[in-house]
Amino acid sequence: MQRLVISVIIAFLTAMALGPVVIPWLKRMKFGQTIYDLGPESHKKKQGIPTMGGIIFLVPMVVVPLLLSLGYRMGSGIFMVLLCTLGFGAVGFVDDFIKVKRKRSLGLTPIQKIVPQVAIAVVAAVWAFLDPRVGSSLRLPFAQGEWDLGWFYIPAMVFILVGTVNSANLLDGLDGLLSSVSLVDFATLATILLIVTAGADPFEDGNLHCVMLFCGAAAGSIMGFLRVNAYPARVFMGDVGSFTLGGALAGVCMAARLSLLLPIIALAMVVSALSVIIQTTYYKATHGKRIFRMSPLHHHFELGGMPEPRIVSMYTIGTVLLCLVALAGFVG
Amino acid sequence: MQRLVISVIIAFLTAMALGPVVIPWLKRMKFGQTIYDLGPESHKKKQGIPTMGGIIFLVPMVVVPLLLSLGYRMGSGIFMVLLCTLGFGAVGFVDDFIKVKRKRSLGLTPIQKIVPQVAIAVVAAVWAFLDPRVGSSLRLPFAQGEWDLGWFYIPAMVFILVGTVNSANLLDGLDGLLSSVSLVDFATLATILLIVTAGADPFEDGNLHCVMLFCGAAAGSIMGFLRVNAYPARVFMGDVGSFTLGGALAGVCMAARLSLLLPIIALAMVVSALSVIIQTTYYKATHGKRIFRMSPLHHHFELGGMPEPRIVSMYTIGTVLLCLVALAGFVG
Repeated sequence: MQRLVISVIIAFLTAMALGPVVIPWLKRMKFGQTIYDLGPESHKKKQGIPTMGGIIFLVPMVVVPLLLSLGYRMGSGIFMVLLCTLGFGAVGFVDDFIKVKRKRSLGLTPIQKIVPQVAIAVVAAVWAFLDPRVGSSLRLPFAQGEWDLGWFYIPAMVFILVGTVNSANLLDGLDGLLSSVSLVDFATLATILLIVTAGADPFEDGNLHCVMLFCGAAAGSIMGFLRVNAYPARVFMGDVGSFTLGGALAGVCMAARLSLLLPIIALAMVVSALSVIIQTTYYKATHGKRIFRMSPLHHHFELGGMPEPRIVSMYTIGTVLLCLVALAGFVG
Repeated sequence: MQRLVISVIIAFLTAMALGPVVIPWLKRMKFGQTIYDLGPESHKKKQGIPTMGGIIFLVPMVVVPLLLSLGYRMGSGIFMVLLCTLGFGAVGFVDDFIKVKRKRSLGLTPIQKIVPQVAIAVVAAVWAFLDPRVGSSLRLPFAQGEWDLGWFYIPAMVFILVGTVNSANLLDGLDGLLSSVSLVDFATLATILLIVTAGADPFEDGNLHCVMLFCGAAAGSIMGFLRVNAYPARVFMGDVGSFTLGGALAGVCMAARLSLLLPIIALAMVVSALSVIIQTTYYKATHGKRIFRMSPLHHHFELGGMPEPRIVSMYTIGTVLLCLVALAGFVG
């Protein structure tokens, strides 16, 4: 418990300290956001705010849990999580970098993005499948017991990893939206892992303890980032941020065999992805009609006149409630 | 655990349902806020937004834990908490009512406010002192053991109760500020009580279980209220709201003998009160000089050009970190 709290606080302070260093540097390097041409009109004013701010939480998220795990018998869990975090984060970094340097709003082509993503996901899924601490079965919420997927575990996990990363990316459309939702998710996962590891000695087997410290550091560093990203944002996380958060979230769930929690605690991401799919399909099928004013769904609310901070608070509160349900479902 | 989650969710839904009923009713009754003449200029635009929205969380906070406690062996704790909640809430209600009806920005005179507040605090403190489950000693954080105050418990508790209520009132100056801070505090207290009561059977002795359910309902109903009070606010909580929150918070700490946590988890309130005292003292001593641009402290930041939502996020994140420290201090 105390190491977890220390992890949150150190990660928070590190992110806070990085903010005033990273933001001016991003500005100097001209990493200003080129706002997506198809977004709401009101977002045009956000032109010039630096992007790639995800670095602010990426660094403490990776460094702090590793340092605090020293002495623990670490196990493979934390490294599986770091593979997902850094792997997907790197794809996002390249995407951001190209966007900014070529001054065009779209970075990598869809194919250039999806191929490395799937490659990372396959490596992570096979690793988890072969790891004796993870294997092919998932914990069931609201019931004792597990669900063994067998070989199907690998494609399922690839789908979940790639899906979460891209859904997180879609949810990153309003100031503080993805960061607030992820903050709640990581806090919930830290709590679940705290309960799961209660009584176990981390010096004997600290596999999940280290993943728990990672969740704490993630929550802390996102809090630090929120200080500068909350409405009105002074920096955007960029794809490096959203891919990192999506990868970290799906990676933690994979390592802790909690992937069945994702549709509950990350419903906001699922809904964002679904709204885009529904909108696009309907638009094509009807040759030009729309269901939502704009997709992803948060832009639908925005164009309906809801102020940006209120949409963020709505998503955050919804996520808090869903996370409580998930907690009750796992702990009883 | 599951009853606690149910308490949060039902209270949230009740508050959500009350919002659309209470707000139009307040508007119809012309309970629009007469903005305090001495506040920042930018707050003038908030004229006409209805006040007394605290009713939205007051009702579920009181009703939901009582209903969910049915069957438990309730003990006196929850009633002590309800005395503080409803007692101080009533003083706030009268104050708001007079403000609105007389169309003046100041309601009761300071003396008219402080006398009933002290009366309620004395009754609550004597009750706690005589109650065998509470008594005159407080739990010590960061150490095993207790601190027995003896007879001094009563004046100390009166000071804490009245101080918390009025500090909460001072902190209620920006959209969502007091509600966000209190939300975090009640969530923390619920967690501490969950740990404290772990293993005990509420049907044998449910004294603290019921207080825990109260904290859950408070957190849930404040979340529901935040949906309408977050920036830009559609309703203000009014004194009925801030006195209720302050009374409930100090009452829970008293009933659970956790009053020594208050300076940590409610530091935002302490700081607000201190900033007013420092400002006023300095102003008088120097015949007109100021330390802060305006007190309470959050107005100092606001006049310094910090956007309202960012100040709220700063206070909330600070409170989260302090609450983590408090949790670690109590649980170890």
